[in-house]
Amino acid sequence: MTAVTIFAVLDLLGTFVFGLSGAMVAIRRQLDLFGIMVLATATGVVGGTIRDILLGDTPPAVLQNLVPLAVTCAAGLCGFFFFSLIDRLNRPVMLLDAVGLGVFAVAGCQKALVFGLELPGAVLLGMISAVGGGVVRDVMAAEVPRVLHEEVYALAALAGALTYGLGLRAGLPGTYAASGAILLAFVLRVASVRFGWRLPRAPGGPR
Amino acid sequence: MTAVTIFAVLDLLGTFVFGLSGAMVAIRRQLDLFGIMVLATATGVVGGTIRDILLGDTPPAVLQNLVPLAVTCAAGLCGFFFFSLIDRLNRPVMLLDAVGLGVFAVAGCQKALVFGLELPGAVLLGMISAVGGGVVRDVMAAEVPRVLHEEVYALAALAGALTYGLGLRAGLPGTYAASGAILLAFVLRVASVRFGWRLPRAPGGPR
Amino acid sequence: MTAVTIFAVLDLLGTFVFGLSGAMVAIRRQLDLFGIMVLATATGVVGGTIRDILLGDTPPAVLQNLVPLAVTCAAGLCGFFFFSLIDRLNRPVMLLDAVGLGVFAVAGCQKALVFGLELPGAVLLGMISAVGGGVVRDVMAAEVPRVLHEEVYALAALAGALTYGLGLRAGLPGTYAASGAILLAFVLRVASVRFGWRLPRAPGGPR
Repeated sequence: MTAVTIFAVLDLLGTFVFGLSGAMVAIRRQLDLFGIMVLATATGVVGGTIRDILLGDTPPAVLQNLVPLAVTCAAGLCGFFFFSLIDRLNRPVMLLDAVGLGVFAVAGCQKALVFGLELPGAVLLGMISAVGGGVVRDVMAAEVPRVLHEEVYALAALAGALTYGLGLRAGLPGTYAASGAILLAFVLRVASVRFGWRLPRAPGGPR
Repeated sequence: MTAVTIFAVLDLLGTFVFGLSGAMVAIRRQLDLFGIMVLATATGVVGGTIRDILLGDTPPAVLQNLVPLAVTCAAGLCGFFFFSLIDRLNRPVMLLDAVGLGVFAVAGCQKALVFGLELPGAVLLGMISAVGGGVVRDVMAAEVPRVLHEEVYALAALAGALTYGLGLRAGLPGTYAASGAILLAFVLRVASVRFGWRLPRAPGGPR
Repeated sequence: MTAVTIFAVLDLLGTFVFGLSGAMVAIRRQLDLFGIMVLATATGVVGGTIRDILLGDTPPAVLQNLVPLAVTCAAGLCGFFFFSLIDRLNRPVMLLDAVGLGVFAVAGCQKALVFGLELPGAVLLGMISAVGGGVVRDVMAAEVPRVLHEEVYALAALAGALTYGLGLRAGLPGTYAASGAILLAFVLRVASVRFGWRLPRAPGGPR
C-alpha cells in the first residue's frame, strides 16, 4: 500500500515537472496564459494518453480523472508566475524531469504487462509513455523534438523500462524492480547531462 | 427531429468551414491540388476522429460515412478556385469558423456524455474536438498551432462545451442547451476578434 | 501460402525502405544514433500503427511482434554506416520506396475490409497507412510533410488501394488484385518522378 502511494506521488510529480517543462517552452515562445496551460497539459498527459490509446484502454485516464489535469494546470500557473525564477533553477528542474522520465517509463511498462504485452513491446511502450509528451510539446512549438537530438534521454527511459521488466521476470518484488529501474533511468539521464555524454552521429553525414 | 436536422446541418457547415481554413493555409503554402485536399480534409475531420479514438469508438465516423469527406473535398475545391475571393472575405470565413467551433465543442461534449464520461472529461473532449483539426493543420504546415497563440479561441470552445454540459445537468432540453452553448462560443470568439481581447503573457517571460 | 509469403516479404521490404528514408532525414538533420533509430522506426511502423488504432485493433502489431522493429533498426544502422553511399543511390531508394508505398496501401485496404469497412473507407485507410509514416517523419523533422507538396505520392497510394478494392469486388483472386494494385501504384509513382508530373496549384494563390 505504501509502495502504491509512493508510486502515485512520483507519478504526479512526474506529471507536474513535465507540465512545467511544457509551460517554460510556451513562455519562451511568448504564448499567452491559455497557450501555456494547453502546452503544459499536453506535455504532462499526452505520454500516458498515447499509452492508453495503444493499449486500447479508452477513454484514457486524463478524461476520467481530474487530478492529472489539475496538476498540469498548477504547473502552467507556476511557470506563468515564476518564469524567471524557474529559468535560473534549470538544474533542479532537470533533476525532477529525470525522476519523471523514470517513473513514466516504469508505469508504462507495468501497465503494458498488465494488458498482456510481451516484454519487448512493454519496454517499448514504457519508453513511448516517457518521451511522448515531450515530443508533442516540441512538435507543437514547431521544433525538432529534443528527444531526437538530445543526449541520452529516450535511452535512459528505455533502460529504466527494460530494467523493470527484467527485474519482474527475475522474480523481484514490483517495488524493488520499480525503484531500481527509476533510479537507473535517473542516474543515466543526470550523468549524461553532467558529463555531456553524446551518442555518435553518422560518419558520412553533414557536419 | 428538426433539432437533429439543424444540428447535422451545422455540423456539416462546421466541417466545411474548417476544411476551407485548411485549404487556405495549404494554398498560402503553395501546395498543389492534392495537398490542398489533404489539408482541408485533415482540418475538417481530424478533430472528430481524435474524439472517436479517445472514446474508443473505432473505426471513426470519417471511415464509415462519405459525407464529411465529400464536404471537405468540396471545401478544398472552393479554396482552389476562389482563393483570392475568399481571402478578401476574411470576415465571413471567421464568422462561419466561429459557428463551427461552437458546434464541434457541443457535439464532442455530447458524444462524450453518451459514452459515459463525467462532465469535466466531456467538456475537455468537446474542446479537443473543436480545436484538434486546426492543431493538425498548423503542425502539418510546420507552424506553431494558432490555438496556442491566438486570442480567445480554445477558451471559447471550452466555454461552449461547459455551458452545454451544465445546461443539461440543470435539466434544460438538449436543443436549448446546445443552442445557448453554440451562441456563447460564437459570441465569445467573434467579440475576442472584434475587440482584440488577449490573455496575459507571463510577467517574467521574454518580450 | 506462397502469395502470403511474398506479401509478407514485400511488407518487410516496405518497412525497411520507409525506415531507411527516416534514417536519411535524421542524418541530414544531424541527429545522433538514437535519433536516427527513432525516426527510422517511426517512419517504418507509424503508418501501420495509425491503421491499427483507427480500426480499434489494439495493441498494434508493432508492440506484439519484434520483427518490424528489428527491420527498422537495421534500416537505421544501414543509414548510419552507409549514408553517403545511399545518398548517391537516390534512384534505387526511390524505386524501393515506391514498392513500399503500393504494398502498404494494399495491406491497409485489405485489413480495413477484413474489419468490415466499406470500400471508400477502406481505400482511404489504405492511403493513410501508406503515407502516415512519412508524415510523422517530416513533422518530427519540423518540415512540411513531403506528401503535401510532392508530385503524385499519396495519389499513387490512393490509386493502388482503390484498384485493389475494386479488383476484389470484381471477383479477382486476392493475389491478382494485390499484384496489379501494387504495380499500378509503383508505376504511377515512378512515372511521376521520372516525368516530373505535378498537380496544379491554386490559380489565385501566391507564387
